[in-house]
Formats: sequence, structure tokens, C-alpha cells
Amino acid sequence: MERENVCLVIGAGAGIGGTVAAKFASEGYHSHLCRRSDQDGLEKLVGDIEKSGGSASGELVNAIEENAIEDVITRVEKDIGPIEVVIYNLGAQTGMKLLSQTSYKEFEWGWKMASFGLFRVAKILCPLMVDRGKGSILVTSATAAMRGNATQHSHAAAMAGRRMLCQTFNAEFSPKGIHTSHIIIDGAVDAPDTLGKMLGEEAYQALRKEKGLGKDGLLLPDKIAETYYHLADQHRSAWTHEVDLRAYNDDPWWNTPRNIANSI
Amino acid sequence: MERENVCLVIGAGAGIGGTVAAKFASEGYHSHLCRRSDQDGLEKLVGDIEKSGGSASGELVNAIEENAIEDVITRVEKDIGPIEVVIYNLGAQTGMKLLSQTSYKEFEWGWKMASFGLFRVAKILCPLMVDRGKGSILVTSATAAMRGNATQHSHAAAMAGRRMLCQTFNAEFSPKGIHTSHIIIDGAVDAPDTLGKMLGEEAYQALRKEKGLGKDGLLLPDKIAETYYHLADQHRSAWTHEVDLRAYNDDPWWNTPRNIANSI
Amino acid sequence: MERENVCLVIGAGAGIGGTVAAKFASEGYHSHLCRRSDQDGLEKLVGDIEKSGGSASGELVNAIEENAIEDVITRVEKDIGPIEVVIYNLGAQTGMKLLSQTSYKEFEWGWKMASFGLFRVAKILCPLMVDRGKGSILVTSATAAMRGNATQHSHAAAMAGRRMLCQTFNAEFSPKGIHTSHIIIDGAVDAPDTLGKMLGEEAYQALRKEKGLGKDGLLLPDKIAETYYHLADQHRSAWTHEVDLRAYNDDPWWNTPRNIANSI
Amino acid sequence: MERENVCLVIGAGAGIGGTVAAKFASEGYHSHLCRRSDQDGLEKLVGDIEKSGGSASGELVNAIEENAIEDVITRVEKDIGPIEVVIYNLGAQTGMKLLSQTSYKEFEWGWKMASFGLFRVAKILCPLMVDRGKGSILVTSATAAMRGNATQHSHAAAMAGRRMLCQTFNAEFSPKGIHTSHIIIDGAVDAPDTLGKMLGEEAYQALRKEKGLGKDGLLLPDKIAETYYHLADQHRSAWTHEVDLRAYNDDPWWNTPRNIANSI
Repeated sequence: MERENVCLVIGAGAGIGGTVAAKFASEGYHSHLCRRSDQDGLEKLVGDIEKSGGSASGELVNAIEENAIEDVITRVEKDIGPIEVVIYNLGAQTGMKLLSQTSYKEFEWGWKMASFGLFRVAKILCPLMVDRGKGSILVTSATAAMRGNATQHSHAAAMAGRRMLCQTFNAEFSPKGIHTSHIIIDGAVDAPDTLGKMLGEEAYQALRKEKGLGKDGLLLPDKIAETYYHLADQHRSAWTHEVDLRAYNDDPWWNTPRNIANSI
Repeated sequence: MERENVCLVIGAGAGIGGTVAAKFASEGYHSHLCRRSDQDGLEKLVGDIEKSGGSASGELVNAIEENAIEDVITRVEKDIGPIEVVIYNLGAQTGMKLLSQTSYKEFEWGWKMASFGLFRVAKILCPLMVDRGKGSILVTSATAAMRGNATQHSHAAAMAGRRMLCQTFNAEFSPKGIHTSHIIIDGAVDAPDTLGKMLGEEAYQALRKEKGLGKDGLLLPDKIAETYYHLADQHRSAWTHEVDLRAYNDDPWWNTPRNIANSI
Repeated sequence: MERENVCLVIGAGAGIGGTVAAKFASEGYHSHLCRRSDQDGLEKLVGDIEKSGGSASGELVNAIEENAIEDVITRVEKDIGPIEVVIYNLGAQTGMKLLSQTSYKEFEWGWKMASFGLFRVAKILCPLMVDRGKGSILVTSATAAMRGNATQHSHAAAMAGRRMLCQTFNAEFSPKGIHTSHIIIDGAVDAPDTLGKMLGEEAYQALRKEKGLGKDGLLLPDKIAETYYHLADQHRSAWTHEVDLRAYNDDPWWNTPRNIANSI
Repeated sequence: MERENVCLVIGAGAGIGGTVAAKFASEGYHSHLCRRSDQDGLEKLVGDIEKSGGSASGELVNAIEENAIEDVITRVEKDIGPIEVVIYNLGAQTGMKLLSQTSYKEFEWGWKMASFGLFRVAKILCPLMVDRGKGSILVTSATAAMRGNATQHSHAAAMAGRRMLCQTFNAEFSPKGIHTSHIIIDGAVDAPDTLGKMLGEEAYQALRKEKGLGKDGLLLPDKIAETYYHLADQHRSAWTHEVDLRAYNDDPWWNTPRNIANSI
């Protein structure tokens, strides 16, 4: 069987993950999609890629379970081909919660999803990439990695760890040809599997009507995917370690929102 | 028994922790010192405070054990007095290690020390401080919270989480009178219990001879303690959320070290 | 005539500048107050310091005029004593202006006040401080130095330059004993000469009634002054390069304001 | 005469500027190249673009002269076509200089090149872009915009102003369709007109031999240009405000250089 260059997507829902998988497949990679649940949703994503002439596969994986990520990587490398690009796209958001509403368990879960999981991926994948002298680790991140808002105790602590790992990975591995990018998604993404589930169907469609759907006020996954691909495609003489993305009419996290900017 | 205002020090060795404890005791607080090991060292610290006319107590606690921190806080509040100030001073450094040298266990340990432990302290202490309408959470932190150097995978991810918690705590609790400060110790501290143990006695004394001992090129714990006390003493109309400290002749983390600054 | 240790305040109105001058005078410095206008206001500040038993003098100076700052420094060093501490407290805010409302002239003025003026002070003062092996440069700064909000084209560009100068000063001069601190005033200060003039008397008093006057929701100059003095007083083994200050119930610049935090 | 979509390059030498001009010309823009001197060099850049089938023009302009930039923009808009993209690529580096070596004049020059010039461009160009509902402002920047190293008093203060302007431009104009990107070139660029002139021919060629020429340790202008084009090409639902670029084997500014990382 012919071996293919693989783009492994960890966290492949109908949003950034699945769309980036489709983008890389359209550029000649075999995309392997992993998500925790929804076999039907997974099959649809894989099927759509194949219908478009791309190569893809997928499986349900609970990434935070012991050995789960490790086994996926080992199997993909053995059965499909070398993982040239990994998209680490697990979310760690559980909504807005006061400290009293944030349990020890939830705090640990956030760390496992945002930080420990990425560490585990690197532990097993970096040596393989070092042997090949190349590889891309594209890490979806959030505003919470940059500053800690109220009600984000678990999320911010966890995502800040994710950001620092991107830096320590580059510090050790970029001279060996492994390019890690920390991608700050600084706004709401028009994605049914994340934003949709968080808001509920009705509020999600209302928000889409207000800001999305031709108004481009929500981040569109297929436009985000363009930047992911660009990062993986950068020549090693000009690598980006960190990039931010938001809709043109949204406020970046560092600005006082325009509608209430009454101070200076 | 008369109840005293308590300064609880979590991580009270012969360095920042013990010295800050002594400073707060000299200003009228009862300092309660917790450290993981070395009963003799602990007794010396407590004894020295008492000899100077201060009020202090202490106990050995392995902070990352289940319920350990929680029990200390509950007991101190019940038996000694209200915790007005907590010094969260647990280190999470295990030396310089490549990714291949950093185990899952060590990564989890770093998170427990740097991030989860602080979360646990806040979970139990913040409600008490909110009831009293005041309190200070002074958090010792490190350069690693600001950027991820090579060989710092565990430390940087863990300390970045610590930093974000300081921000989410202030975001929720500063309007309720609880002041959290993230204190970036951006250099080597002249402390036998941390620097000394990390370097070994010989290298530690050599470094002290080169940079410390009258040359002030190592951070002196009793000078650091002045800033800790100042932060706890700030009026609520002018609170500091983040501050950095380093020796006058040391390079801050953001500068290219002077001796090799051959680029721009 | 006996020579005194001088605290030179550039920008000494009835707010941070004048109050810091009084604080340093109360600690034994001779404070020399410079401001652009209002001889009566200046005399009142100097007189109040003297009534409290402190030593002070002052003069009207338009700092951005050619040689104005340079002459003050030369004269003070010659006639009064060595400038141990300089407080660079010139504001560069001209209100909220769209790009179309911001003239070339205003943009240049902002740079002169925020950045070039500080550079000029250092050019003449640093060599003197280097000769003495010590000195403190305390620089009042603003949120605008950290991020560029809408309507702050001139202010943000200018204050960011101020911040970087603090870093380049420390990079060159802290090993020579000169301590520069960049002090981010991240909120409204209860000061008639700045906030009062910007808002107008009526709005100023309304804001004071709402947030100040016992509620401590505006930064109080005499509480700010405590931190300025602490910075000048820090031992050289533990210097702070950057610190932020805001009221306990105010949002730091990096947080989404609590009252509209509907996103994550 | 048919009007073309213009990419205006301010600072078009044989490095980033000229190469980005060629890239945009290859994608269908008319590139108009401005540089201060070297008519022959300019003609070569324009000629090379035309030989490759692209459309280009150019002129010598001293951007910091009164009305110089303004006149170029007005003329290009009248004679060639709408400026869809402006590349602001003026350098403001004058080498490594101590404070005593940095004159008032040089400090002002740095501000004019790095900050005021960009402000002037936006003053005249943003209204035109607002009328068209679109436009890209791509701003070449430097590590000095992020932190102030020793010997960089003028450069750091000036470039920090440049960075803040990018933020204030986006804050006011991104909702109106104008996309500003702050592009941090965090390393040495393999460019004869900048690095070559700064180092001298011999040292430049030695550095190229050591790190460039197949080793990719210097940033290659044509690889940088890929990211510039990607930024201008981003869909408005997913815009990048800030991005960094460096060679794979170079240290980012926030890391302690690997070869001397003996502290943590």
C-alpha cells in the first residue's frame, strides 16, 4: 500500500478541525480526523473530503484517556503514513463559571485537554518528526491563553499552558525542523459543533443572523483554514510562531470594546 | 485565646517564603509557615521570628496531597485567626530538561504545584476573604510564566497557568476586596533551599562569591520581602496586579543578554 | 549653602506630580516642582510642602521648548543638589480623537511630551547619575503604552515610545546603578489638574461622587505616591522595571469589562 | 488609460520592499516602488518585475520630507489607480548606539521614519480606503517594537510607536474594511540594501556563508513576501493583526538564546 503524507487532526468537529482537515486534503495530504463522539458527524466529514477527491480517514477517540492519543499516532504512522502536520484542536472551554462553580475535576479536565494532551502529542510525535527533519504542529488557541477574564479560571490557566508549550516546543525543536504555531482564535467561530452547542441552536442561529451569514462578523472555518495551511506551507527561513485571527468588525482582546470606550 | 491576623506562607523555606514570613511577622501579623520537609529548618525559621519578638507557627505539609492545603487553611482560620494574607510560594522547577527527559508524571507534578495548588487555595480561601471584604493573595512567580524557554516544558506550562489564575482571581474578586499580585522573580535568588539545592553547595557558593555577597547580583530575600509587604499594604484605590523583580545588573527576560547582544 | 538630595518632578500639577513631590519631601528629599503654567497652583504645592516641614522649590517650565528641561536639570544640580530621583510625569493625552481629528502638529506634540522629553532628560541626567553610581527615573505612564485603543493614535504611539525608553534605559544604565521604573496608571486618577480639566468641573465632580470620595474607585494620588516612593527605595538587588496600578473595582486593560463580558 | 489596482511600496530596496512589490505584481497588482535613493537600483527592480510580465513603476522619494509621501499617494491614486495595498517598509535602524552616541536629531529621525511617516500615510490613505470599503496596510516592523534592548534607544522608541499605530488603525478602521497588519521581522534578513549596508560587504558575505545560502538561517525576502501576500489576501472574517517571522534556527526575542541558556 502506498504511504501518504498525513495531516492528523485531533479535535475534528464541524468547525475549525473538520474544515482544516478538508483544506489539507485538498492540498494533497491524507487527513486523519479524530473526535470524541458522533460517528455520523465524523463519517460525513470524511465522506465529504472523499467526494471532493481528497483522501481521508477518521476514528472516534477520547483524547484524554490514557494512551488514546499515543495509540492513534502510532497506528497512523504505521498504517497510513508519516504525520507531516498535526492540528491540535481540542477545546477546553466549559462556559462562564465563577470560581465557586468551577470544580477541581473541571479544572483538571481543562488542563488535560488544553495542555497535557498537547504535551503527550509532542512526546510521541516530536522524535518521529526530528528523525524526518521536518513537521508542523499547528495549535488552535484562544484569547484565554493571553489573559484571564472573569469566569475563565479553568480555561485561562489551561490555555496559557498550551501557549507556553508552543514556545518551549519551538525553542527545542524548531532548529530541528519542527515548526509549531500558536494560533489565537480571538473571536466567535461560526461552527455548529462548538459555538452552536455552547449557545444552543436558537441563540446560535440568532447570532448567525446578526453577525454571520454574509456579514462575516463570525470567524468562518474555511477562511481560518487558509491561514492554517499557509503556516504549514511557510519556508523554514520565515516561520511564524504566533498569529491572531478575528473578524474585521470585532474588537481584539487588548482593546476596550468600541461601544463602551468611554475611557482612555 | 486572642485571635491574630494571619499571614499564611505556603512554601516557607530559607529563601523568599521564610523571609517574607518574618517580614510580615515584624509588621504585626502572625505568620504560619508551611513547607514539605525539614522539621529542623522549619523550627529554626519559626524560632528566629519569635526571638525577634514576632508571632509565628508552622507545620510540615505536602501541599499537593489531597486535602492537605484545604485542611491547613481550615485549621488556621479556626485555631489562629483570619488569613489576611496568603503567600503562595511553591516552586515548580525541576531543572533543565529536554522533552525526552520530561515525564508525564513530572509534567503533572508541575501543574499541581504551580497551578492546581493555587486554584485549591483560592477555592477555599476566597469565600472567607469575600465575607471579610478583604484579603491579599501574593503569588511568587517566575520568568517561565512569561515565556517558554527550551528545557522548561513543564515549568513554563505550569507557571503560565499560575499567572492566568492571578488574572482570573482579580477579575472576579478584586471588586470584592481581594487583591492578588503576580510577582515575577526574574533572576536567581540567593537562597540555600532553592538555588543552593539546585546548583549544589559548591556551585552555589561559587555563584554567591561571583555575584552575591555584597555585589547584590543575586536577588536578596529580605529585599524581595519589602516589595511583598508593600503589595499587601497598598490602598485599594491603587493596587498592583503584576510586578517584576530582578537584580540591578541582571538582564530582564525580554532583553538579549548584554554580553551577546550582537544583533538588533 | 548645604546641598540637598533632590527629587525633580517634571509635570507637577495637583495630581500625581505634586503629590509624589510632597511624599518625597516628607521622606527627606528636596522636591523641585516643574509645571508649564499656573504660578499660583505651583506656589500652593510648594507652600504646602514647606508648611509640613518639607523642603521644596519650583518653577514654571514649558518642557518641550528647546533647552528648557536641560536648563532646569543643570541649574538644579548646580544650585540645589544632586538629582537622586526624577519623576517624569508629563501627560500626552489630548482626548479622544478620530484619525481625521488628529493633526500632524498634535501627533508631534504627543511625541515631544511622551517620548522625546524623556529622552532629553536621560541624555543630560544619566551621565551625572552614572558618575554618582545611583539614581532613580520614575516614569508615569498610561494604559495607552500597552495597547492602542481607537481615538488614541497620538497618545498610544507616543506612550509606547515612552515605555520602550524605560526598557532601553535599564538595559544600558541599570548595571551602572540607575533604576528606571515604568509605572502604568491603568485607570482614572482623582486629580483636578488632569481628570478635572479633561472632563470639565461638573462631570468631574459627578464622577467623583459616583466612584471616588470614600469609594476608592478612582486612583488616589497619595496612594499612588506610596508606590513611587517604594520603587525609589528598592534595594538594588531587587528592582522593579514595570508595575501597574488601578483601583480595586476597576477592570485592568487586558480584561473584557465585567459588565459586558458576554464572550469568552 | 485603464486603471489598475495598486500595491504601493514605501521603502522598496533590494530586500523585503522590492521583493514584496514583485510578489504583488505577480499576483496581478500594479506595484509602485518608492525609495530614497539609487535610481539604478530602482530601475532594476521595476525592470525585473516587467520582464516577468508584471506591471510596475517607481520613483525616488525622501519619505520624511514635507508632503513627499502625501504627494506620492495623491499622484498614484490619480494617475495609476486605487491603492489597494500599501507596504510601509521604511527602516529606522541606525546601528547600535549608546545613549551618549544617540543625538536629538537621530532620535527625531527615527520617529519620523518609524512612526510619523506611517501616521501621515494613514491620514491621507485611510479616507480613500474607507470610501472604497477596503484596503490593506502591511507594516514591516522589528523586534525593537516589542522590547527595548541596549543601544536601541531611538529604534525601540520609534518602532514601538509604529506598533501602537497599527493597533489604533485597526481599532478605528478595521470595521470599515481596512486591514492593518503589524509584521514583526524577528531576525536578520538576507538583503544587500539593509543588512549588507549595515554590516559592510565583507561581513555580510561572511554571515551569508555561515547562516544563509542554502542554510536558511537568514530570513529570505521572497519567503517573507509569501506571508505579506497571505495577509493581504485574508478574508475579512479572519484577519491577522500581528504576526512574527524568523528563521527556523533562530531564537525568538522572548527566549534566552540557546547557546547561553544557563539559567531558568
